[in-house]
Amino acid sequence: MGPRMALSRVLFIGRFQPFHKGHLAVIEWLLERFDEVVVVIGMASESHTWRNPFTAGERIMMIREALREKGIDLSKIITITAPTLEVNIASLHYILMLSPPIHAIATRNPIVESVARDIGVNVINPPLFRREVFAGEKIRLMIVAGDERWKELVPSSVAKIIEDIGGVERLKKLYRVCKEGGGAEKLCRVYQC
Amino acid sequence: MGPRMALSRVLFIGRFQPFHKGHLAVIEWLLERFDEVVVVIGMASESHTWRNPFTAGERIMMIREALREKGIDLSKIITITAPTLEVNIASLHYILMLSPPIHAIATRNPIVESVARDIGVNVINPPLFRREVFAGEKIRLMIVAGDERWKELVPSSVAKIIEDIGGVERLKKLYRVCKEGGGAEKLCRVYQC
Amino acid sequence: MGPRMALSRVLFIGRFQPFHKGHLAVIEWLLERFDEVVVVIGMASESHTWRNPFTAGERIMMIREALREKGIDLSKIITITAPTLEVNIASLHYILMLSPPIHAIATRNPIVESVARDIGVNVINPPLFRREVFAGEKIRLMIVAGDERWKELVPSSVAKIIEDIGGVERLKKLYRVCKEGGGAEKLCRVYQC
Amino acid sequence: MGPRMALSRVLFIGRFQPFHKGHLAVIEWLLERFDEVVVVIGMASESHTWRNPFTAGERIMMIREALREKGIDLSKIITITAPTLEVNIASLHYILMLSPPIHAIATRNPIVESVARDIGVNVINPPLFRREVFAGEKIRLMIVAGDERWKELVPSSVAKIIEDIGGVERLKKLYRVCKEGGGAEKLCRVYQC
Amino acid sequence: MGPRMALSRVLFIGRFQPFHKGHLAVIEWLLERFDEVVVVIGMASESHTWRNPFTAGERIMMIREALREKGIDLSKIITITAPTLEVNIASLHYILMLSPPIHAIATRNPIVESVARDIGVNVINPPLFRREVFAGEKIRLMIVAGDERWKELVPSSVAKIIEDIGGVERLKKLYRVCKEGGGAEKLCRVYQC
Amino acid sequence: MGPRMALSRVLFIGRFQPFHKGHLAVIEWLLERFDEVVVVIGMASESHTWRNPFTAGERIMMIREALREKGIDLSKIITITAPTLEVNIASLHYILMLSPPIHAIATRNPIVESVARDIGVNVINPPLFRREVFAGEKIRLMIVAGDERWKELVPSSVAKIIEDIGGVERLKKLYRVCKEGGGAEKLCRVYQC
Repeated sequence: MGPRMALSRVLFIGRFQPFHKGHLAVIEWLLERFDEVVVVIGMASESHTWRNPFTAGERIMMIREALREKGIDLSKIITITAPTLEVNIASLHYILMLSPPIHAIATRNPIVESVARDIGVNVINPPLFRREVFAGEKIRLMIVAGDERWKELVPSSVAKIIEDIGGVERLKKLYRVCKEGGGAEKLCRVYQC
Repeated sequence: MGPRMALSRVLFIGRFQPFHKGHLAVIEWLLERFDEVVVVIGMASESHTWRNPFTAGERIMMIREALREKGIDLSKIITITAPTLEVNIASLHYILMLSPPIHAIATRNPIVESVARDIGVNVINPPLFRREVFAGEKIRLMIVAGDERWKELVPSSVAKIIEDIGGVERLKKLYRVCKEGGGAEKLCRVYQC
Repeated sequence: MGPRMALSRVLFIGRFQPFHKGHLAVIEWLLERFDEVVVVIGMASESHTWRNPFTAGERIMMIREALREKGIDLSKIITITAPTLEVNIASLHYILMLSPPIHAIATRNPIVESVARDIGVNVINPPLFRREVFAGEKIRLMIVAGDERWKELVPSSVAKIIEDIGGVERLKKLYRVCKEGGGAEKLCRVYQC
Repeated sequence: MGPRMALSRVLFIGRFQPFHKGHLAVIEWLLERFDEVVVVIGMASESHTWRNPFTAGERIMMIREALREKGIDLSKIITITAPTLEVNIASLHYILMLSPPIHAIATRNPIVESVARDIGVNVINPPLFRREVFAGEKIRLMIVAGDERWKELVPSSVAKIIEDIGGVERLKKLYRVCKEGGGAEKLCRVYQC
Repeated sequence: MGPRMALSRVLFIGRFQPFHKGHLAVIEWLLERFDEVVVVIGMASESHTWRNPFTAGERIMMIREALREKGIDLSKIITITAPTLEVNIASLHYILMLSPPIHAIATRNPIVESVARDIGVNVINPPLFRREVFAGEKIRLMIVAGDERWKELVPSSVAKIIEDIGGVERLKKLYRVCKEGGGAEKLCRVYQC
Repeated sequence: MGPRMALSRVLFIGRFQPFHKGHLAVIEWLLERFDEVVVVIGMASESHTWRNPFTAGERIMMIREALREKGIDLSKIITITAPTLEVNIASLHYILMLSPPIHAIATRNPIVESVARDIGVNVINPPLFRREVFAGEKIRLMIVAGDERWKELVPSSVAKIIEDIGGVERLKKLYRVCKEGGGAEKLCRVYQC
């Protein structure tokens, strides 16, 4: 595969529920070091659950609009959609099969890192970018709580998309169904909050 | 689909673990408004777990016997069995594919409701029928606790079926295995109580 | 399961693409011998292919309208939908789990028969009802060829449903795509004609 | 979703085994009419079979290099990877869930077209671009036969990728194993040629 | 199946995360009563999660080395790998299909026992062998806590394998990721601790 | 994994429908070169079809009895059961995950060989052992045709197992159902002969 690697590429896996400024910072940091970033939208087949409220298509839209807002050249981003997101040797190979050849995987998860190293894939650890703030579930909880500061944690184009697609209301409904139990009973396993 | 809809139909999704008087009241309420009710037995492929102790076949039997006991014409009920029960756009379409054309989905779950509306399906909200009492898990816990009042919460024909198939003992075993941990360890993921 | 079997039941598996007079004759023959027939709609998750052009919901509608046309009491029919239709020991048990307890499986397929016998399930062989004529694929080919005699091979209510849902045109398109190859290339595996 | 559709988008589904000049012409034709093209790599989870010899990652690389060669702005292309490629109502919705909102599906397959129309999605029929020549399987057969004119049927960057990744030899091996039968026997179902 | 059963066989299902002295004692106890033991490695397709940290291959190696260490004839052990480990009638039949004919299932799980009895399979209850100590999760937690006494709970060959394959570090990473939440958020569903 | 490889191991994948003298010769040839052979029973989840008539359990029994008959030490054989048998990079890794560490894969299939080499696994090509005779499908066809010479192509213990489990009759039924078409129509996709 060597000769095809004239362009350097790095793989970045996430669920992006929602895509926030931490994710954006990672992509910018990676684009300073690689020509192209392969963004894997994990758990692409799940949506409308508390953990994965947004469809893969909505997440791709968030990613693209956020990068466009920042003036990043979208031609450097390759999106792929992976149905689930397990962490073992065969699963990582499955994701690698979906992707053009890469030079490294960007991760801070030590398990992903060791599985990657086991199969001979380079690993690069992007900095954390204030993870205590930029975490998907925290942002979703702020949205549910009506804490408007969530809009500072995501690119403004992402905030706009969430509002345009009725995402605030969707999250509130999901949270309510999850907490109630009655609803969770009725549609179990789906609302795993 | 219009011309085939001479009969009005409504879709009602549930797990029916077990089928109780709340479910029965919904079906009766729906039959006052529609010619036929399509009853979707969700998570039909799971059984012998704490959340889904009864097989799909046992649940269909409960539904039919309960309706028969009430004098409801079984020809107005169409049963379909759906392997899992996820709540997203594609999954709802999957269930719609299994069903004859319908005029509405009966649900009180706000997420199911908004997904249904997103794809242009009518939604009807049946009344709650004392949900604080008529909830599958509460009834299962009463059975495990030996609280005989559970028999007042399900149609008497359902109580009889549960006893005839050894359901009381099955629930007690499932609960014990779940709570013990050792057993749950040994057969993990199955007992998600 | 004994005590619940006050009603005698028999299981009848098919794909019903489409439901024809041969199927109808089997159900009538079975209803002379059993109180209830559990009709398993096999390959329920496939539709819009040459082999399985109609959705499970469309097939259930065909079955019900054909029986209604014949004056058969629909309360004696229990429909269940099975995602695929494999023939081995575990698969047959899977189908049995979806069904209320049965006394026998109706089949003329010798493999289904021996698997059923291996697991202790009774088998009953319905007569053939002119199988050389009443076969799903032959009827589909007649529809594609414009041979109007196909309408004599299905109950008239089924013919009406097929026409109402645009089934004639759907079959012609499927056949054309299959035979062309170019199209089959583009959407391979789906059109396995 | 309306407000997010400031950019017009069209969905184009294919297996791209390999990506050839016919595919390229469709994308160019679509980019004259839409701002962005969502390219769905179908059967992304299959590779190293006669029908799907190239991995999804290899196919994405072919698509991108071919477009780059033509001077097309890659930022207008959104790639998504779909595990299988079935044609029914639920499957099309599944693909739509993976994609940002679209205005139309580009297809010449009449079944895809009617399913799309059934669920309210616009369909656009791109011209054929000499389909008798530009068909994946024909090109693969030419490669196996050593007919060098296959290189005229794909963009030169695609020809280069196929050669760089050892694709010519891979196809010859696959064809040989398929035709031999002995090998196909040993690894059945995989080589469905 | 009678004539093939010249050798008596018993089925023993487990996840073996890791294989410990309790498992070993069960196998020894069973080999005093049967000619061969079919060891089912459950959840074989999962690895690198907190609940199932070791691959099926690593677990088979642990089992074989532990038995070899004890001087047990490995020709009496038949390993089979089962993708998941559900407890219902069809799933148990699935496992039985993978196994040569058996005379009994060894289990202390009351649900497995009643499902087995329901389908006519004998059940044998091995003694517990100090279950309060010999439990997979407890051993994993001891490893994470740095409590070296875990090595007394597994055969010494298993302790050696765990160390050789970097299992101690793998468990510590898995535990850390699970407890942190941030990581679990990023790769949800996998770390279900 | 190095230190655990004190014993040399080789992986041998097959469907073994049935296990014949060609398979046996390969295993003997491998045991002259390696300490242990990991035998992967492919397509373990399929049975009672023309291509895969025997269950995985029946196939394991054939393998073990044939080796025992030859006086081969069964402790050198490790059986694993793989649900399907695809040939791509991720699938081969899946099989490798099920297996203890190996030094090589034994195959004569050029695609398996190149995929294995791509991921850094050694390949060893066992001799063919008169493949024109020793091929599963040919033996099955001889059984169906009543050509008693099939018994010379399998170890005598395998012939005995096939007869004891009613395998001759099972194959004849499968062949008849496949060829008839009518039956194949009824239970399509299963009989892919």
